[in-house]
Amino acid sequence: MNGEQTRSATDDPAFAEGPWTVFSATRRASEVIAAPLSAEDAGAQSMPDASPVKWHLAHTSWFFEVFVLTPACPGYRVFDERFSQLFNSYYQTLGVPFERHARGLLTRPSLDQVLAYRRHVNEALEDALQNDRLSAALEKIVELGVHHEQQHQELMLTDIKHLFFQNPLKPAYRETDLCEITPQSTYWRDFAGGIHGMGHAHPGFCFDNETPAHSVLLRDFSLASRPVSNHEYRQFVDDGGYRDARLWLADGWSCIRQRGWDRPLYWSEDLATEFTLHGQQAIDPNRPVVHLSFFEADAYARWAGARLPTEFEWERAAQLSRDGAPQLAFSSRTELHPADLRPETFSAYDEVWTWTASPYLAYPGFAASADAVGEYNGKFMCNQWVLRGGSLATPAGHLRPSYRNFFPADARWQFSGLRLARS
Amino acid sequence: MNGEQTRSATDDPAFAEGPWTVFSATRRASEVIAAPLSAEDAGAQSMPDASPVKWHLAHTSWFFEVFVLTPACPGYRVFDERFSQLFNSYYQTLGVPFERHARGLLTRPSLDQVLAYRRHVNEALEDALQNDRLSAALEKIVELGVHHEQQHQELMLTDIKHLFFQNPLKPAYRETDLCEITPQSTYWRDFAGGIHGMGHAHPGFCFDNETPAHSVLLRDFSLASRPVSNHEYRQFVDDGGYRDARLWLADGWSCIRQRGWDRPLYWSEDLATEFTLHGQQAIDPNRPVVHLSFFEADAYARWAGARLPTEFEWERAAQLSRDGAPQLAFSSRTELHPADLRPETFSAYDEVWTWTASPYLAYPGFAASADAVGEYNGKFMCNQWVLRGGSLATPAGHLRPSYRNFFPADARWQFSGLRLARS
Amino acid sequence: MNGEQTRSATDDPAFAEGPWTVFSATRRASEVIAAPLSAEDAGAQSMPDASPVKWHLAHTSWFFEVFVLTPACPGYRVFDERFSQLFNSYYQTLGVPFERHARGLLTRPSLDQVLAYRRHVNEALEDALQNDRLSAALEKIVELGVHHEQQHQELMLTDIKHLFFQNPLKPAYRETDLCEITPQSTYWRDFAGGIHGMGHAHPGFCFDNETPAHSVLLRDFSLASRPVSNHEYRQFVDDGGYRDARLWLADGWSCIRQRGWDRPLYWSEDLATEFTLHGQQAIDPNRPVVHLSFFEADAYARWAGARLPTEFEWERAAQLSRDGAPQLAFSSRTELHPADLRPETFSAYDEVWTWTASPYLAYPGFAASADAVGEYNGKFMCNQWVLRGGSLATPAGHLRPSYRNFFPADARWQFSGLRLARS
Amino acid sequence: MNGEQTRSATDDPAFAEGPWTVFSATRRASEVIAAPLSAEDAGAQSMPDASPVKWHLAHTSWFFEVFVLTPACPGYRVFDERFSQLFNSYYQTLGVPFERHARGLLTRPSLDQVLAYRRHVNEALEDALQNDRLSAALEKIVELGVHHEQQHQELMLTDIKHLFFQNPLKPAYRETDLCEITPQSTYWRDFAGGIHGMGHAHPGFCFDNETPAHSVLLRDFSLASRPVSNHEYRQFVDDGGYRDARLWLADGWSCIRQRGWDRPLYWSEDLATEFTLHGQQAIDPNRPVVHLSFFEADAYARWAGARLPTEFEWERAAQLSRDGAPQLAFSSRTELHPADLRPETFSAYDEVWTWTASPYLAYPGFAASADAVGEYNGKFMCNQWVLRGGSLATPAGHLRPSYRNFFPADARWQFSGLRLARS
Repeated sequence: MNGEQTRSATDDPAFAEGPWTVFSATRRASEVIAAPLSAEDAGAQSMPDASPVKWHLAHTSWFFEVFVLTPACPGYRVFDERFSQLFNSYYQTLGVPFERHARGLLTRPSLDQVLAYRRHVNEALEDALQNDRLSAALEKIVELGVHHEQQHQELMLTDIKHLFFQNPLKPAYRETDLCEITPQSTYWRDFAGGIHGMGHAHPGFCFDNETPAHSVLLRDFSLASRPVSNHEYRQFVDDGGYRDARLWLADGWSCIRQRGWDRPLYWSEDLATEFTLHGQQAIDPNRPVVHLSFFEADAYARWAGARLPTEFEWERAAQLSRDGAPQLAFSSRTELHPADLRPETFSAYDEVWTWTASPYLAYPGFAASADAVGEYNGKFMCNQWVLRGGSLATPAGHLRPSYRNFFPADARWQFSGLRLARS
Repeated sequence: MNGEQTRSATDDPAFAEGPWTVFSATRRASEVIAAPLSAEDAGAQSMPDASPVKWHLAHTSWFFEVFVLTPACPGYRVFDERFSQLFNSYYQTLGVPFERHARGLLTRPSLDQVLAYRRHVNEALEDALQNDRLSAALEKIVELGVHHEQQHQELMLTDIKHLFFQNPLKPAYRETDLCEITPQSTYWRDFAGGIHGMGHAHPGFCFDNETPAHSVLLRDFSLASRPVSNHEYRQFVDDGGYRDARLWLADGWSCIRQRGWDRPLYWSEDLATEFTLHGQQAIDPNRPVVHLSFFEADAYARWAGARLPTEFEWERAAQLSRDGAPQLAFSSRTELHPADLRPETFSAYDEVWTWTASPYLAYPGFAASADAVGEYNGKFMCNQWVLRGGSLATPAGHLRPSYRNFFPADARWQFSGLRLARS
Repeated sequence: MNGEQTRSATDDPAFAEGPWTVFSATRRASEVIAAPLSAEDAGAQSMPDASPVKWHLAHTSWFFEVFVLTPACPGYRVFDERFSQLFNSYYQTLGVPFERHARGLLTRPSLDQVLAYRRHVNEALEDALQNDRLSAALEKIVELGVHHEQQHQELMLTDIKHLFFQNPLKPAYRETDLCEITPQSTYWRDFAGGIHGMGHAHPGFCFDNETPAHSVLLRDFSLASRPVSNHEYRQFVDDGGYRDARLWLADGWSCIRQRGWDRPLYWSEDLATEFTLHGQQAIDPNRPVVHLSFFEADAYARWAGARLPTEFEWERAAQLSRDGAPQLAFSSRTELHPADLRPETFSAYDEVWTWTASPYLAYPGFAASADAVGEYNGKFMCNQWVLRGGSLATPAGHLRPSYRNFFPADARWQFSGLRLARS
Repeated sequence: MNGEQTRSATDDPAFAEGPWTVFSATRRASEVIAAPLSAEDAGAQSMPDASPVKWHLAHTSWFFEVFVLTPACPGYRVFDERFSQLFNSYYQTLGVPFERHARGLLTRPSLDQVLAYRRHVNEALEDALQNDRLSAALEKIVELGVHHEQQHQELMLTDIKHLFFQNPLKPAYRETDLCEITPQSTYWRDFAGGIHGMGHAHPGFCFDNETPAHSVLLRDFSLASRPVSNHEYRQFVDDGGYRDARLWLADGWSCIRQRGWDRPLYWSEDLATEFTLHGQQAIDPNRPVVHLSFFEADAYARWAGARLPTEFEWERAAQLSRDGAPQLAFSSRTELHPADLRPETFSAYDEVWTWTASPYLAYPGFAASADAVGEYNGKFMCNQWVLRGGSLATPAGHLRPSYRNFFPADARWQFSGLRLARS
C-alpha cells in the first residue's frame, strides 16, 4: 500500500468517542512501536521501498501539519519550514519531495528532534480538537490522518524487520521466543454466486479506493478455512516448485531466476529457521507461511491445484464471517509473528495478508478528489495486486471487509501469505 | 500479444474452404510482407521485444514442424535439427530457447535457408493436408498455427518499422506518399448496462484466452464514435500534458521522465512529421494518433475528462456493431498507416488498437491445456493490459469481438491508439 | 587510497617517543573527529565508496585485535567474535567480509558499543605496549596500524562531508565561518632533469607501495608555485570547459555527460557557494579549488595549456622543498577547509591533494609480503591514479615526499585539487 | 586500440613503392577479408565494442573521403552526404557520430552500396594518386589512412569471430582444420638494463602515440622465449587459479566474479575445445593461449611466480630481435589461429598480442596535432593497457618495435595472450 492511501469518505463511529481520544491513542501507538529502537535503528533505510522509522514518525506528523494545522489554525507556528520538503512523501503539488531512496541519509533532524516535532504537532492538535476549533471537514482530515498513521505503523514494523535482517547479528526487535502451534485441520467453505454488493457502504471511515459501493457478479466458489502453512509450503519447495517454469507466470519466473529466490524471504538456506521480529527462530510447520511475493503465492496455488481468490470472493467471505474483523490488539500482543487464529466458526481473516488474484484497479465510477490530500488517489492503480484481510501487524480497528491493501507482484517484505480458493 | 498466443477452441468456418487453401494463403502472405526487405533488413533486431523478420519466418515454420509434422507425419525429415533450439520462442518443455535479445545475431541460417525451410515445411504440409493424413485434432493444430502466423505478420510490420526508425536514413518500407484525410465529427454512442455474455461462444476459431464464454455485469456507458486523432492529441501535448504529474499513473510518470518521452513514439521533435512505413511523413491531423503506450492513452483520457473503456465495454460495443469486424485486406492496401474508417453506422473497430482499462487476466474457469502447445497459455497474465479491435496491420479475418491483444503498459511500437469512454 | 594501505617497511623515528604514546594519541584523535557527531550521523553511509564513521572507528580497532592482540597476546579476550566479519574490510583470508555497500545498515552494534570496543582494544594494547610484551615484528604491526588509522581519520572527514552534503538541511560539521583569503601571485619553479632517487629510502615508517627505493629518469620540468584557485577554475567553467569534448579524455567526457557534471562536486548550481565542513559557504576565489576528479584536473590543465605533474616530478619537487612536509596539526585547526599555505619559500605541499599524471603502479621489484596484513598490497594497482602531497585533513606527521595516495579517475569526494606542471 | 589511432609522423619507405600501389593493395585486402561473409554476416554487431564488418568497410572509406577527397579534390562528388554521420567513428568536430552500439541496425545502406562506396572512393583516389594531385601533406594523410585501414582489418577478423561465437551453429569463417603443433622448450633470455631509446626514431610511418622518441631507464630483466601455451594455462585453471582471490587485482577479481569467467573467452566449458575462425576445434596444448583479458594475463603471471613485461622491456627485446618483425602475410595464411613461431633465434614477436604491465600513457612531450585527424589522439590514455608485438591477424608490414596497441583490462575478444618476464 506504500503507506500512502488517503481520503476518508463517511462517518466513523469509532471517531465518535472523541477525535482527540482516538488521535492521541494513535499517536502514542506509533511511539510505542519506535520505543525499543535506538536512534541508529530508527535512522537506517534498508531499501528504497522501505523508510526509516524516524521518517515514518516525522511524515505522519507532517501530514497533520500540512493538511490541518497550517491551513486551519491561524496562530499555528510551523515547527521547521524545511521539514515540508524532507517529510513530504509524494505530493507533487506541495513541492518536490526529498528523494525516497535517500531517506536513510537524513541523520538530521535527529530522532529527538522528530519526537519534539511530534509533540509540537500533538499539542497544536490537542488545542484544536479539545476546543472544537476545526470544521467538520477538517475533522475528517484528522480522521484520515489517524488511519494514515495506522498504515505507517504496520510499515514501521515490516521496515524494521527488513533492516534487522540485513545485519549479520540478526538482532531481535523483541526478545521473546515463539510458542509452538498445534496442527489444525482445514476444510473448504462454499459460497454461492450471484450479484453481491461490494465496497464500503456503511457509516464509518474508509479510504476512497473502497468506493463507490457497487454490485459485482460472482460465481460459486470455495475458500479454504485457513491460510497455507509453513509445512504445506515446504512441500512445494521440496517438490521443486521453484525449479518448474510451468508453475510460474512469465514475469514471476524471470523474477525468481534473476534474484535467485528459492524460498520465502526470511527462511534460512537450510529451510530450518526464519528471521522474525524475535530474531532467528525455528520455522513452526503449523504457522502460516509469510513473506511471499504474489508470484510465489500464485505459483503455490497452481501447484496445489487451486487458485488465489479474487478480492471480491474474499470480501464476500468476510461479509459472511460471523465475528467480523478481529480486533487485533497489536500493542497487547507478546508475539509479533503470525499464528493461526483458529476461530470456532469460519472467518475470512488471518494473521497474514492474503494475496488475491485481483489487480488493484479503480471501482466503477471512482473519482479522485481535487484537493492536495487526494492528489494522487488513483495513481498506484497499475501493476499492483490487491491483498485482503490484514495481518498481525495491522492496528486494531483498522480492518473491515472492504479494506484494500496493494503491492507490486514482487514485494515480499510485508506480512503477506495466501489462502486457497477454487471454483 | 508477444506474437505468442496459442490454442484453438472451436470450429472455424473459414477453415471449411479447405485447410490447405487457408494454410498456403497465410504462408504466402508472410512472404509477401518480407518481400521488400533485403537479407540485411530481415536479419536485424532493434530491441529485445522485437524480432528479426527472418526469425518470424522461421519460427512460424518451426511451429508446424514441431507440433504437426514431427509428431504426426512418420516419414517427415526434419529440415535441420539445430533449428529446434534457434526458433523456439519460449516453450521450455521443448528445450532451452535461444536468448530472445540475441536473435539479431543469427546471421546463419541465411534468409535463403530460412525460405528453403519454409518451402520444406510447406511441401510436407501440402502432402499431409491434401491427402487427408492428419487427424481432426492435428488439423486443429494446423488451424492454430495459421492464426499464430497471422499474429506474427502484424509483428513483422511493427518490428521492421521500429528497426527502420533507428536508421538515420529513415528508409521507407513502401515508397508511396499518404493521402490527406478529411476531418470528421465525433459523437458519443450510449450503451445500456446489464448482464451480457462475453468471450467466444460461436463456432469458429479462437484463442484460449477468449474462453470460457461467461457473463459480465456492465454499467451504462458511452463510447466515442471514433479514435482520438493526431489533432486532438497534439492539443494534449501543447497543453503540457507530458509535464503535469497529476494526469499520470505513478508508474507512467516515472516512465516518461526516465525515458524522456514527450510525444508519441514516432513523432518528430518539432511535432510536424512522423515516421511511417512510408518513411517520414507529415502528421495528418485527422488520422488517429498511434504508437501510444498505455500510460499515454490513460493520461490523455484523464486530461480529456473521460476514461479508457474496459475490455468488456468495447466487446459489448463490437457485438452491437452492425457490420462486424472489417475484413481488412492488408495485402491489397496501398497505405500502411492508420486512417479513420468512417463507416456509415457506428462501429467499435478502428485502424488502431484500442488500449483498454482492463489488465490482461484469465476469464473465470480458464484452464490451460496440458500439452506443449498450451504450455504457457496463462503465463503472461500479469502486468499487461488488454488492447481490443485490431489495426490496419491485422490480417483479414483475424478479428472478432472476443479477440484480446495484450502488451505491457510501456509498449508503444504496436499500432496502438485509443478511443474514449465515459460512464 | 580506500583507507586500506598496509605494511610498514622501516624504522620510524616518530615511534621512538614510545609506541604507547603514539598509539594512544592516534586513537584519541579518531575519537575527537567523531565527537561532534550523533550516533545517527556516525551510522549512515552516503555511497558504497564511503563508510559510516562508526565503521571506521570499529574497523581500525579490528585491525589491532586481529593482527596484534589475537595472535600475540595469549590472554586476550576477543570483544565480540562476530565483529571479525562485520569490520573486516577486504581481507579474504580472514573470511568473507560484510558487504561494503551495506555498512550503513549495521545499526547494531551501537556507537556506544563500538566505543567500548575501542576502549577494550586500547586497554589490551596499553598492557602489551607498556609492559613490552610485543616482539619487534609486532611493534611494527602496531606502527602500521597507527598509520592505517590515520588514513581512516582523513576518510572519516571526507565521508561525513559527503553524507552531510546529501541532506537538504546542509548541516555543518563545525559551526564557524571561513575567513577570507588574500589573492597571491604565482610563478613557475624550474627543476632539472636527470636520474633521481625515488621512493622511501630513509629510516622511519612508510607503506609498502613507497618501496623499493629506485632511480627514475626525469626530464627538465617546471611546477607552479601554488595550486589552481577557485577563481582560475571558475574561468575554465565560464569558458565552457565542461562542454568542449576536445579538452577531455574519452572516459572523462562520457563520465561528465552521464552524470551531468558541470562544476566541482560541492559547488552550488549558481557557482556562488560551496558545501564545506562548515556548512554552505561563499566560494572564496583565492582558495584552492577542491573536490575535483582526475578527469576534471586533467581537462583543466589541458585548457590552461599545461599538464599535470607526474608523481615523480612532484616527489622531486618535494625533496627540494626546504621546509619539508608541513606538520598539519589537524586537531588544532579552526578551519576545516583548504586555504593556500603561502610559504615564503617554494614548497610542493598544498592543503589539497594533487592529482598526478601517474597511474598507480608497483615500483620495480615491488613484492607483497605473504602474511595476511600484506594480503592484497598490490591489488589496487589498476585503473587508479596517484595523488600526492596531502591535504588539510591529513594527520600531522603522516606526510613525506614518497607518500602515495590513489583513487579512481572519477573520485572527487576527497580533498583533491591540482597544481600545474609543464615541460 | 579501438581501431581508431590516427596521425602519421615520418616518412615510410614502404610507401615509396608508390602510394597507389600500397593504397590499392590495402583496400583490396579489406575486401578479401569480407569476401567469405554474407551480407547478413557483414551487418550484425555482437556487442558495443565490436562493429559490423560492413561498418568497417564503410568507415575506412569515409576516412579517405572526409580527410582527403573532400578537402583536397575540387571536383570530387560526395558519394552520399548522409554517410558523414553514419560512418564517423568519434570525431566530434565533424558532427555527432551515429551511436556506436547501434551500428548493427544500419541495414541500409546495403553491403552492395557500401562496396560501391568503396569503389567510388578508390577511383577518386586513383585519379588523385596516379596523377599526383595531392600535396605531400595529403599523401601523408593517405598513408595514415592506409595504416588506419590495416588496423580495421584485424578488428574485422576479431569482430566476426565474436559474432559467430554467439551463434549456436558455431559457423566457421574458414572451413579448414587446424594442424597439430609440436611441443617446444622454453628458456629465459636476459637483457641488460641501462638507458635505452624508445619510441619511433626511424624514417617510415608510425602513429603519433609512438612519439616522441625518448630515453627510458630499464633495469636488468629476463623475458621468456615464447608465449604461455594452452597447456600451461590449463594448469593454472586446474590449480584453481580462477577461485583464488589472492592472485587477482581487486578489479579483476570483481570482474571475473560478476561475469562468471572461469576460462579464456572461447574455451568450451569442458576445457576440451575452443571456438576459432575455423569453427569449434580441439584445444591444442602447444599453441599459445589466446583471448585473455589483462586481468587473466596478470593473474597467470603471478601464479607462475613471474610478471608481465613492461612495454619498454618488450620494446627493448624487439630492438634486439635479429630478424625484426615477421612479415605476416595474412592473406596467404591457411590457418587463422595463433601458432608458435619457433624462430631459430630469439624473437620478441608472437602470433598473439602480449599484454604488458604498462598503462597506455602519453610519451613525455607528446602533443596531439590541432586538426580534425588528430582531434583526439590522446583521449584514450586512461584506464587502458598496452599490448605489444602483433598477432597472426595483424597485416604484413604493420608491425615495428615501437608499435603500441591498447585495450581496457577486461577486453578479451582480441588475439591477446602473454609472455612472462622477471627481474
